[in-house]
Amino acid sequence: MIRVTVWYEAVEERGEFRPEFVPADIPPEFREKMAGFVEQSAANVKKAYPEGLLATLSGHLRKNPDMEVTYTTLFDPEFGLPDDLLDKTDVLIWWGHMAHHAVPDQLAFKVVERVQRGMGFIALHSAHLSKPFRYLLGTSGNLKWREVDFTRVYRMNATHPITQGVPETFELEQEEVYCEPFDIPKPDDLLFTNWYRGGELFRSGATWTRGNGRIFYFQPGHETFPSYHNPIIIKIIENAVRWTAPVQWIEKLESPMIEKSPEELLG
Amino acid sequence: MIRVTVWYEAVEERGEFRPEFVPADIPPEFREKMAGFVEQSAANVKKAYPEGLLATLSGHLRKNPDMEVTYTTLFDPEFGLPDDLLDKTDVLIWWGHMAHHAVPDQLAFKVVERVQRGMGFIALHSAHLSKPFRYLLGTSGNLKWREVDFTRVYRMNATHPITQGVPETFELEQEEVYCEPFDIPKPDDLLFTNWYRGGELFRSGATWTRGNGRIFYFQPGHETFPSYHNPIIIKIIENAVRWTAPVQWIEKLESPMIEKSPEELLG
Amino acid sequence: MIRVTVWYEAVEERGEFRPEFVPADIPPEFREKMAGFVEQSAANVKKAYPEGLLATLSGHLRKNPDMEVTYTTLFDPEFGLPDDLLDKTDVLIWWGHMAHHAVPDQLAFKVVERVQRGMGFIALHSAHLSKPFRYLLGTSGNLKWREVDFTRVYRMNATHPITQGVPETFELEQEEVYCEPFDIPKPDDLLFTNWYRGGELFRSGATWTRGNGRIFYFQPGHETFPSYHNPIIIKIIENAVRWTAPVQWIEKLESPMIEKSPEELLG
Amino acid sequence: MIRVTVWYEAVEERGEFRPEFVPADIPPEFREKMAGFVEQSAANVKKAYPEGLLATLSGHLRKNPDMEVTYTTLFDPEFGLPDDLLDKTDVLIWWGHMAHHAVPDQLAFKVVERVQRGMGFIALHSAHLSKPFRYLLGTSGNLKWREVDFTRVYRMNATHPITQGVPETFELEQEEVYCEPFDIPKPDDLLFTNWYRGGELFRSGATWTRGNGRIFYFQPGHETFPSYHNPIIIKIIENAVRWTAPVQWIEKLESPMIEKSPEELLG
Repeated sequence: MIRVTVWYEAVEERGEFRPEFVPADIPPEFREKMAGFVEQSAANVKKAYPEGLLATLSGHLRKNPDMEVTYTTLFDPEFGLPDDLLDKTDVLIWWGHMAHHAVPDQLAFKVVERVQRGMGFIALHSAHLSKPFRYLLGTSGNLKWREVDFTRVYRMNATHPITQGVPETFELEQEEVYCEPFDIPKPDDLLFTNWYRGGELFRSGATWTRGNGRIFYFQPGHETFPSYHNPIIIKIIENAVRWTAPVQWIEKLESPMIEKSPEELLG
Repeated sequence: MIRVTVWYEAVEERGEFRPEFVPADIPPEFREKMAGFVEQSAANVKKAYPEGLLATLSGHLRKNPDMEVTYTTLFDPEFGLPDDLLDKTDVLIWWGHMAHHAVPDQLAFKVVERVQRGMGFIALHSAHLSKPFRYLLGTSGNLKWREVDFTRVYRMNATHPITQGVPETFELEQEEVYCEPFDIPKPDDLLFTNWYRGGELFRSGATWTRGNGRIFYFQPGHETFPSYHNPIIIKIIENAVRWTAPVQWIEKLESPMIEKSPEELLG
Repeated sequence: MIRVTVWYEAVEERGEFRPEFVPADIPPEFREKMAGFVEQSAANVKKAYPEGLLATLSGHLRKNPDMEVTYTTLFDPEFGLPDDLLDKTDVLIWWGHMAHHAVPDQLAFKVVERVQRGMGFIALHSAHLSKPFRYLLGTSGNLKWREVDFTRVYRMNATHPITQGVPETFELEQEEVYCEPFDIPKPDDLLFTNWYRGGELFRSGATWTRGNGRIFYFQPGHETFPSYHNPIIIKIIENAVRWTAPVQWIEKLESPMIEKSPEELLG
Repeated sequence: MIRVTVWYEAVEERGEFRPEFVPADIPPEFREKMAGFVEQSAANVKKAYPEGLLATLSGHLRKNPDMEVTYTTLFDPEFGLPDDLLDKTDVLIWWGHMAHHAVPDQLAFKVVERVQRGMGFIALHSAHLSKPFRYLLGTSGNLKWREVDFTRVYRMNATHPITQGVPETFELEQEEVYCEPFDIPKPDDLLFTNWYRGGELFRSGATWTRGNGRIFYFQPGHETFPSYHNPIIIKIIENAVRWTAPVQWIEKLESPMIEKSPEELLG
């Protein structure tokens, strides 16, 4: 049984913006713009996902008998990730956008530490700028973006466990456009690249490892487009849950002293 | 002209331990042990490096007409890295050991941000646990270790710029033993691996990139052994300074919106 | 001085098809189709490149005072690569299309051996199916293709020596379409990816190393489109010549016996 | 059911050297030396492996209910790999040493083609110089070697499927010494590195992919030392059989034309 925790920022879905979501040095006019955007978004998200964006994804994952899914949000106690939940998480799925700053560094470092010990981490869509993703990869996660376009997703690797059951290409009528340069470290495996009608392209699926943990980034999932209703997208995320599930845990991260060298031990 | 900043923790060399160097939850007995170790170390470091450990390395680097070297330590104002120095640094060399915790996260993140924008970063010896190294790589940097042994360094790549002028193997009569498993992400290039007489081995030289910046880790450099008097070691670090020197800077890290798609721009 | 040898198959340019260019088991109707295509092509190539396709590229390279360029073709003695030329080649540029089979395995293996010893190898356009490229990479080099479309080339790496002076994107009004899946081993560095208006994408620039040699594949260069008149394309190929130029040669490929172990040698 | 074919050169075991095993330009004195070595070897191999070197390994693999094992040698018809056997092979294990040249290029290329289509390939010990291994990797496979020493094998990756159930280190009282530089392309994953008491080290386990096929090289397995009686070695090879087993086959290697672009197909 894989214990999957789906963490959702939920700001757009709730239409609730708070000043502490952004750093103090964000200029007031930008802050107001964000607040305005968020206020308007709730209705649009509800139209695309009547049951909620990540709640919908959680529902799909729950149909897998090998997955035990917990859904949680930034608005829940302890920012949605109390220790006792994190300690029981095998794979953490992360979706954040407007409130990356609201996640305390201390919590982000706990996630990093748990990934290093073995937990899987799946960063979806705008989580490319989330703290756990950036602290795990060490890059900025920056990219270029545009609101919406027709998207064709190319599978770039036919034999990786995450691409099994996925066709060579598939199309999304509407998705947010993310465009290169995407600032990520060289992936272990590049799994997907997006083609956009407007002329952009983007490495949209990629894997890395950190310590004993496996990481997958996957681009589709804007809150007002129906990607998490798409069976191919769901298939990919299900595959990713199984591939990032812990192979073995490191009990404690430490740099132990070697009391006797291997050759001494032989006597 | 490459502007090289050599940052040295300098705790052992000064023999000066302060409680704030370690996290609050370090048990008192371990804290005392560290303080005791540091008190004794100053004389030993002075014996091996009368002019100072990293001051000696800085002196070697200064002989290169293409390098402008600034030497700084944790005990200097603003932990040795005020903004105006960091902003004028092309390549940052980092040596820390007993006081990784004393470097504020805020400063470590500034280093990370500057590497992502183009600065080179060279982590020496026990900097495998330093904050900038860990925050750049996303792994724990953990390893196993033992005080001292005869070390044979194997060059694992004959054509990388950092290994030019370096023989296929070379030997260090005494170095600290670092042993696998070494928790680092898959290197872009594995340049050196150490063999120890006591039976250990260790990937002792490796490179990565993060954003526009290049990173090199190199193991030799324990404070009481003469590695920074060794011309091969110096050659490697000089090569690394030139290889990690910025290729081009990113002015500002950001994720800009695409106002018009490339195809729209064509009319 | 970098000794560059530009090898061109030259079948389309000469309009000269010979039965021995293709394997014996190619069906007669396909053989005739190839012959027909080749007969028609010479005029078209001449229109796009009055001085010849690779002769034009050679002319551009000759303007670099650090390059000494020899132009040679399949129709020259010893298939254009006699030993004394190969032995004086630092970087070999290869363009083949209709007559990959005409290159004897023995010659392809000589190229492979020389790359392993240090020679640079640049495979252009349809050389993705050439013997030297396939024998060096170990993959089939297969892809999907279509005659022509508007192409936008994305630079995927801002700091690699081959991409210096190259803009973030550039456009080719007409190029042949090559499309994923492209069967190549994981590149050391992915440098370019092509976007096509018709909906395809393709990893169009990538590097590998084999032994002491460096390899670059670059997609643009169909014989009837003006890519080798494009200054950005020329810049990329010039950069690639310098980057693939030998760092150091291996005198002889061999697996020598260790007479005395390193520890025995110490006495 | 994984159909495993174990291919053994069997020259030392049979004590049978033939002139055609080596290239025509091998000097007579070296040829005689090889013949002499082979004549003496049969008794030694029999002592270490009364049932035969690779027959012993095959016996171990046959205990796995998910593996169907065929054992074959260079001395069998069609060099041990008739088409109908190769066509029914999911994973090919290869052990050759004295007679790499005796394998026709045509057969080696058939192996390469089948790996590109999906077959797993496991190269054991001296197969680092075999034709299929070299033609798949594109490097020479060269290394340095010495007859025998105490070997400590370090596991370099704790989470790869091939290392599951394998301790962090294990020791072989006697193995042939292989030493860096080992001329292989950058591995996808470095799984093992050997430490030798005499002072050498060697990347002894590594993976690559080519087309849809997975490749594993593993160093232990000299014909007169008991490595293939060692349960850890057997465990590793069993894991490798399962990891290299085909994920999906490519029916036919080809570069098909795109009749209509994806955008045209949408109408």
